[in-house]
Amino acid sequence: MPVERHRLDSRVLAGNPLGDPTERELYVYVPPGYDRSKRYPAVLAIVGFGGTGGYLFNVDALGEPLDRRLDRLIASGACPPVIVAAPDCFTRIGGNQYINSAGTGRYEDYLVDEIIPFVDAQYSTIPRGRWGVFGKSSGGYGSIILGMRRPDVFCALADHSGDACFELCYLSDFPAALDAFRNAGGPQAWLDAYWRDANQHRGKHMKPLNTIGMAAHYSPNPAAPAEHARIDWPFDLVTGEFRPAVWERWRAWDPVNMVAAHADNLRKLRAIFVDCGTSDEFALHWGARALVQKLRDHAISVRHEEFDDGHMHIAYRYDASLPFIVDAIVK
Amino acid sequence: MPVERHRLDSRVLAGNPLGDPTERELYVYVPPGYDRSKRYPAVLAIVGFGGTGGYLFNVDALGEPLDRRLDRLIASGACPPVIVAAPDCFTRIGGNQYINSAGTGRYEDYLVDEIIPFVDAQYSTIPRGRWGVFGKSSGGYGSIILGMRRPDVFCALADHSGDACFELCYLSDFPAALDAFRNAGGPQAWLDAYWRDANQHRGKHMKPLNTIGMAAHYSPNPAAPAEHARIDWPFDLVTGEFRPAVWERWRAWDPVNMVAAHADNLRKLRAIFVDCGTSDEFALHWGARALVQKLRDHAISVRHEEFDDGHMHIAYRYDASLPFIVDAIVK
Amino acid sequence: MPVERHRLDSRVLAGNPLGDPTERELYVYVPPGYDRSKRYPAVLAIVGFGGTGGYLFNVDALGEPLDRRLDRLIASGACPPVIVAAPDCFTRIGGNQYINSAGTGRYEDYLVDEIIPFVDAQYSTIPRGRWGVFGKSSGGYGSIILGMRRPDVFCALADHSGDACFELCYLSDFPAALDAFRNAGGPQAWLDAYWRDANQHRGKHMKPLNTIGMAAHYSPNPAAPAEHARIDWPFDLVTGEFRPAVWERWRAWDPVNMVAAHADNLRKLRAIFVDCGTSDEFALHWGARALVQKLRDHAISVRHEEFDDGHMHIAYRYDASLPFIVDAIVK
Amino acid sequence: MPVERHRLDSRVLAGNPLGDPTERELYVYVPPGYDRSKRYPAVLAIVGFGGTGGYLFNVDALGEPLDRRLDRLIASGACPPVIVAAPDCFTRIGGNQYINSAGTGRYEDYLVDEIIPFVDAQYSTIPRGRWGVFGKSSGGYGSIILGMRRPDVFCALADHSGDACFELCYLSDFPAALDAFRNAGGPQAWLDAYWRDANQHRGKHMKPLNTIGMAAHYSPNPAAPAEHARIDWPFDLVTGEFRPAVWERWRAWDPVNMVAAHADNLRKLRAIFVDCGTSDEFALHWGARALVQKLRDHAISVRHEEFDDGHMHIAYRYDASLPFIVDAIVK
Repeated sequence: MPVERHRLDSRVLAGNPLGDPTERELYVYVPPGYDRSKRYPAVLAIVGFGGTGGYLFNVDALGEPLDRRLDRLIASGACPPVIVAAPDCFTRIGGNQYINSAGTGRYEDYLVDEIIPFVDAQYSTIPRGRWGVFGKSSGGYGSIILGMRRPDVFCALADHSGDACFELCYLSDFPAALDAFRNAGGPQAWLDAYWRDANQHRGKHMKPLNTIGMAAHYSPNPAAPAEHARIDWPFDLVTGEFRPAVWERWRAWDPVNMVAAHADNLRKLRAIFVDCGTSDEFALHWGARALVQKLRDHAISVRHEEFDDGHMHIAYRYDASLPFIVDAIVK
Repeated sequence: MPVERHRLDSRVLAGNPLGDPTERELYVYVPPGYDRSKRYPAVLAIVGFGGTGGYLFNVDALGEPLDRRLDRLIASGACPPVIVAAPDCFTRIGGNQYINSAGTGRYEDYLVDEIIPFVDAQYSTIPRGRWGVFGKSSGGYGSIILGMRRPDVFCALADHSGDACFELCYLSDFPAALDAFRNAGGPQAWLDAYWRDANQHRGKHMKPLNTIGMAAHYSPNPAAPAEHARIDWPFDLVTGEFRPAVWERWRAWDPVNMVAAHADNLRKLRAIFVDCGTSDEFALHWGARALVQKLRDHAISVRHEEFDDGHMHIAYRYDASLPFIVDAIVK
Repeated sequence: MPVERHRLDSRVLAGNPLGDPTERELYVYVPPGYDRSKRYPAVLAIVGFGGTGGYLFNVDALGEPLDRRLDRLIASGACPPVIVAAPDCFTRIGGNQYINSAGTGRYEDYLVDEIIPFVDAQYSTIPRGRWGVFGKSSGGYGSIILGMRRPDVFCALADHSGDACFELCYLSDFPAALDAFRNAGGPQAWLDAYWRDANQHRGKHMKPLNTIGMAAHYSPNPAAPAEHARIDWPFDLVTGEFRPAVWERWRAWDPVNMVAAHADNLRKLRAIFVDCGTSDEFALHWGARALVQKLRDHAISVRHEEFDDGHMHIAYRYDASLPFIVDAIVK
Repeated sequence: MPVERHRLDSRVLAGNPLGDPTERELYVYVPPGYDRSKRYPAVLAIVGFGGTGGYLFNVDALGEPLDRRLDRLIASGACPPVIVAAPDCFTRIGGNQYINSAGTGRYEDYLVDEIIPFVDAQYSTIPRGRWGVFGKSSGGYGSIILGMRRPDVFCALADHSGDACFELCYLSDFPAALDAFRNAGGPQAWLDAYWRDANQHRGKHMKPLNTIGMAAHYSPNPAAPAEHARIDWPFDLVTGEFRPAVWERWRAWDPVNMVAAHADNLRKLRAIFVDCGTSDEFALHWGARALVQKLRDHAISVRHEEFDDGHMHIAYRYDASLPFIVDAIVK
C-alpha cells in the first residue's frame, strides 16, 4: 500500500493550551517504484478546517483520493515521483491555521521541527530547504504563510482557496456565531456543548466553530476570561459592538497584509501557485485576487488561476498545482 | 378617506446628484374626527430601503395597513389621535438613509425644511420641535440619526430594526455585490443594467443594490470615476482588498459610533424606542443592543424591546412604539 | 382617480363554510377618457394565493402598479381602453382558487353571478359573454378553469404561472406541512395558531398555509373531523402514508387533466395566453408546458411564452398578455 | 489492522447494463481478539446513495469511523464481537438500492450469492440464515427490502433513515431533475455530462443524480430510448406531465406498500430496527412512521426510534441499532 501511517509523539505540542493530543498520526504517500538509492521531492499536505491529514486518502465513490491521483499523475509523466506527508493538526477548536499561536499551540514549529525532520529521516527525500507545501482553505492559508515565514524550509507552495481578505471571508460568520455563543452562555460554554453533541457535523455548528477557530489563532489572550475561551473577541459578546483594536490583530495575519513585510522571503521561493473557484462560498476568490496583486506589486512571481466552482470538493485542482510545485523542487 | 395624498415640488432636491424627481408624493394620515380647532401630535414615518411612504398604506390580505392600525389604536384609546406624514424619498440607488449626502441629495433637509413645514401649514399640528419620527430598517436608522441631529425638530423617535453595527449588517453583502459589479463592468454599469431589467425585485439584485445604496450615502465622492458611481468603495473593486480609510467614513455614520458626540442632543428627547427581532436576517438585533448600551452609557433613557421574529413584515411592532412616542409628544 | 373602490354584499357567499365576510371590496380600473356613450372591453383580474384585488394597485417603488401599467399601455396604443375589475376573494385558508368548493365557498358563482353583473350594470362594458379574465399563480389557475367552465361568460383569458401538474407544484410542500400540522396538533389547530400569530407573513407559515389552502379546494369533506379542518388529506396526518384515492380528487382539478373534458368549451374562446418563467420556484413552467401540449393535442389555439424569471414580481408580463386578450375581446 | 480489504470478481454482475466493474472491493471488519475457533455473528453493511463500503471506515476528525465505533462498543460490552462486511455497490447512476434491477444489475443476488458466501468461507461466522444487515438512507432501504425478501439469509436488520413514502421523499427532486435533463438534452446526455465534469459532488448535480438513480431501479425499461437512459420516466420529459402508470411501478418498490405481501417473511426475523431524525431533509421520518405502522398493523415487531437531527452524519445511531441486531443474532 503506497500510503504509510506513522504515529509520532510530539515534544513541541506538549502542554498545548487546548489539551490536544501530542501523539498523532502522520500519513506518508510513497510513489510507485520508490527506490531508496534516489532522492525524491517531498511535499507537505495540510488540510482545511475540520480536517486531518488522513482525510486526503479517504475512499470517495464520487472522487479521487490523493494517492490514486498521485499514482495517475506520476504514471502519466505529468508529475515527477514525489513523497507527500500529511500530518494531523486537528484541535479542539475544530482545525488549524498552521501557525504558532498562544491559543492553539506551536503548529508551525510542529510541522517544521518535527514532521519534516521525521520524514527526511525516514525517507529518501530532497530534504528540508527544498520541500513544497500545499493545501486548500485553511491549508492554502497555511501554505502561503509557511512560504512567507520559512523559506529556509520550503521552496514551493500551492495555496488553493486559501483564507485571505479577512473582512470578506470571516466577518459574515459573526452574526450566527454571536447568536450561538449568546444562546450557549459564551464561547467556552458553546464549545463544551459542541463536543457533547452526538453530531459534530451539524450545519448550524459550522459558523460558530469556524469563528472560534479563527479567533483562537488570531486574537488569543491567555489572560482573557475562561468563559471567553481565553480569546479577545473582535465583537463585544454582549452587545455586538465592533472592537477595531482586536480586529487589527486579525488583519496582521491576513496574507494580503503580510506580503510587504515578507516580500524578500517570498522572492526566494521557486514556485507559488494560487487559485480559487469563482463561486467560492467564502468569497476567497477575492482574497486570491488581492493576494496575487500584492505579490505582483512586490515583483514576486505567482501562477494564478480561476475556475468555475465553489469551495468544496475541488481536489481535482491538485492536477494543476502539484506538477507545478514538484517540477520547481526538482529542477 | 383618512389618508390624503399630496404632491410637492422640492427646492431642496433640485439638482440632486442622482437626477431623481423633485416633485414627489406625500401621504398624510388624518385621525378620525379630526378637528381643526385642536392641535394634534404629528409623526414622520420613514420607510425601509426599497420603499416609499405610500407603501405603508398598501392593501395586504395578510397584514394591517398603517391607516387601519392607527384607526384601531386610536379607537381603543391605546394611542392618542395623531397625524402621520409619510414622504417619498426613493432614489435611483434603491432607497434612502435620510441624511444629507453628496451621493444622493439633502434628504435630511428635505424632511425638516420642506415636508414638516408643509404639514404644519396644512394641518393643525403640534408643530416642529414636538414632532416624532419612526421607521423600520433604513427608516429606523433615519429616525435615530434625525433624533441625534435635530432635537430642534423632533422630541420622540422609534427605531425599529434600524441599521447599526455596520460590520455585522453590511459587510456580509459585499462578496455578492463585488461579484455582481465585476460581472456587470463596475457599479455604475451594474446600476444601469438593474434599471433596464424588467424585474427590479429579483433576489439576486438585493445585495448589490443595498451595497450601492449604502455606499452612496456613506462614502460618496463626486470626484470618483463615473464608472465607480462617484463612490469611494471600502473594497477595491478589482482585487477585493479592504480599504480601512474608506470604511472609517462608513463607521462615522454608524449610530453606535455617533452617540458620544450627540449625547447632549439625545438627552433633549422625550422618548426613544429601540427594538429588533432576535432572528433579524441582517443581525440588527446586535446593532440595537450595541446602540442601547451606548445610550445608557451616556445616561440617555431608552425603551428597548426584543421579539421573536426576523426583519420582514413586523409592522405589528408599531403597536408598541407609536403609543409610546405619541404619548411623549402630547404629555 | 382611475381606480374606483366599491363595497358589495354577497348573497352567494352567505353561509360560506369558513365564516369569511360576505361584504367585500371590489376595485375597478376605469381607463382615461372613459366615455359612457361607448362600450369598453372588461376584464376580471384575479390574484395569487395570499392576495386580494386591491393588491394590484399597491404603491411599489421598485415596480409598476396595474393602474399605471394600464395607463401606459393604453396611452401608447398597445392596448385598447379597458375596464379591469379586481375583486376580493381572500379567505381564512389564505387565498382562493376561484372555484365552487364545499371547503371554501362558491367563488366561481360569486365572480360570475355577482361581480360581473355588478360591473356590467355600473359601467359601460361589452358585457358578460365577452369578458376576459387573467391572473397569476392561483389567479392564472382560476383564469384557465373559468375559461374551461364558463365560455358563456368569458371569451379570452391569460394564465400566468398558473397552478398545473399538481404532482410537481404541490407535493413538495407536504413534508413541511405535515411537520407543521403535527407540531400544532393537526391542521385546524395549525390554522387557528396561524391566525393568532402576530405575523402572518413568516416564511415558515407558507408551505402549511398553501397546503391547507389547496386541500380545502380540492378534497374538502364537510363530514371529516373538525380537527382535520373538514378536509380529506392525501397523506395520513399521523404516518404520512399516501392516499391515492384522495389524490385523485386533486388530480381531477388539475388543468392538465381537465382539458379533454372541456375541449369544446375551450375551443369557443377567442384567445388563450399561457406563460411562465423558466425558473419558477413552484415548477409551474412544467405545468404550463403540459397544459399547452394538452390544448394543442385538442386543436385548441394557445399563445405560449417562456421568460427568464421566477414566480414572484412578474407583473411586467401583463404587457404581453393584456393587449392580446383585450384585442381579442374587441375585434 | 482490524479492517481487511479484499478484491472479488463477480459472476453475478458480469454484463450488467451500466457497464460497471465486476471486480470490486470488500471491506471486512474483524473484531479484536478474533478467534477462528469461535463463531461470530456477521452483519452486512450497505451504504447510502453516492457511497461505497469503504466509506464507512474513512478518517473523520469530527466523527467516529465504523471500526473505532465497533471497537468501542465491543470493548464496553455494549455489543457482542461481530464481523461486518461492507461491499462496494457503487454504479454509474450514482449508487445502489440493493435490488435486482434491469436498469442497474442483480445486486440483491450479488450480496446474497457472492458477498455473504465469500465472507462465510473466509471468516468464522454464524453463517447465512443468521446474518444481519443494516444501512442508512438507500442502505436502510436495502436493509428492509432484503429483510422482506430474504429471510433465508437474514434474521435481523436495521433501517436507518431509509427511503419510504416515495411521494414525500422522491417527488420533490423532480422539478430540478427535469430542468437539468432538459438543459442537457435528456437524462442520458445529462449523465454523460455529469461524468465528464471535474467535480461529481457539485450541489446542483444531486437532485438529477438521485432521480436518475431511483428511476434506473424502479422503472427501467431496456426497450426505452437510449437518450432516455433506458428508463420509463414518471413524468414526460418534454412537458412534465405525470404518468401514473409508471409511478405505480415505483410505488410497488415502496417498503410501505410491500409489507402486506411480505408479512410472513418479516415475521420470521428476530429483530427489526427502524429510526429516523425528525428533521430529515428528505422527509424520511414520515416514511419510517408509515412503515412502522404497516409492520404493526401486520403484527410484526419493530423497534422504532426518532431523534433530533437531519439526514446526514448520523452514524452515532449505530450505537443504538448494532447491539440490538447483533444481540438478536447471537441469542
